[in-house]
Amino acid sequence: MQDIRAIVFDLYGTLFDVHTVAEACERHYPQRGLELSLAWRQKQLEYTWLRSLMARYANFEQVTEDALVHCCRRLGLPLDHDARAALRDAYLRLDAFPEVPAALHALRGRGLPLAILSNGTARSIAAVVRHAGLEAAFDHLLSVDAAGIYKPDARTYALAERALGVPRGQVLFVSSNGWDATGAARYGFAVCWINRSGTAFEELGERPTLAVGGLDELVGALPQG
Amino acid sequence: MQDIRAIVFDLYGTLFDVHTVAEACERHYPQRGLELSLAWRQKQLEYTWLRSLMARYANFEQVTEDALVHCCRRLGLPLDHDARAALRDAYLRLDAFPEVPAALHALRGRGLPLAILSNGTARSIAAVVRHAGLEAAFDHLLSVDAAGIYKPDARTYALAERALGVPRGQVLFVSSNGWDATGAARYGFAVCWINRSGTAFEELGERPTLAVGGLDELVGALPQG
Repeated sequence: MQDIRAIVFDLYGTLFDVHTVAEACERHYPQRGLELSLAWRQKQLEYTWLRSLMARYANFEQVTEDALVHCCRRLGLPLDHDARAALRDAYLRLDAFPEVPAALHALRGRGLPLAILSNGTARSIAAVVRHAGLEAAFDHLLSVDAAGIYKPDARTYALAERALGVPRGQVLFVSSNGWDATGAARYGFAVCWINRSGTAFEELGERPTLAVGGLDELVGALPQG
Repeated sequence: MQDIRAIVFDLYGTLFDVHTVAEACERHYPQRGLELSLAWRQKQLEYTWLRSLMARYANFEQVTEDALVHCCRRLGLPLDHDARAALRDAYLRLDAFPEVPAALHALRGRGLPLAILSNGTARSIAAVVRHAGLEAAFDHLLSVDAAGIYKPDARTYALAERALGVPRGQVLFVSSNGWDATGAARYGFAVCWINRSGTAFEELGERPTLAVGGLDELVGALPQG
């Protein structure tokens, strides 16, 4: 961690809480909100992996809506036009995790370029960041859409290395998603895994450089510029 | 379905019940067997997809054991050497679904070549088929191991087309796994989705040619030789 020259963040689940949508789900499906939110997120990820493997890319907004349609059918929840639009749009208004704004501010104070690399479309990333008032925190907002494939394919991580102009070994990649942290480590980034829930890391043959309980801990772990 | 000249079956979850392992899980972890079995199967699949996307192939026996280790850690279940070996080996002794032996016999009676194309290793496939006494039912037992990548990558389905020597449009691919049925349809096979539990198909842009509740229904749906 001595020679880190730039930091790249995952967005969904890392800086922003995907289960903010559970509240919107609960409004439409009382007593079933959390169940739908969990199933939806899982299916959304599966669809990104499966479409990547089938060479049948569709953007993240489409995949998110497809996953919602599937989960509602499977769980027996009626999905009318209004519910579909409201739930889809809830993914554009996620809450940042509580410690995130101050931690980003502190990291910017170190003079390190900061970027987001997300499965989301450019439009979705911009909407989520703007909704949280964090536009000024980042030098680059990068979507895998430019690569036409999803994480953890190496071509997605290459987008960040190229945009930053920093060799991969000097890029710190930050993610709460163990599979994403694994993919980034496999690519050659230094990796910080944010483990807010105290869960176990994935057994996929890579380990993070650093594991912390929140973004504030990462600030403390980085050497002072 | 008029000009089908060969049939290819998925193994895990299609001919054989992966939740047979729930009983072995229950013996080691009373009251937690089904929870572990469900989590383990889900993680096993995730690892096949993620390793494929990261170009970091490990064979299915390794992936299955890695997924078990992860799930036990996450669920707080101690996994000693004996439990690890016993649970890993339970995947070699899965039960065939009840209607499968008679349905395979009837399909062989039509004179169609029958094959298995599975994520499992050649050794695992042979063990599972032998344990059920179904060795004589198949002309080919094919493992994705020969392609070094997992379903639904097109190179895996190509193994079956090549082994059978039948053009893909005349191959019927049979799977209970919606994502596998999708990948096979995307490849160009005719597809029969076995939907034993009455669930919803995946929203991945492909549809099966035929959907049935069990293998016996497929026998009835195929035109008589």
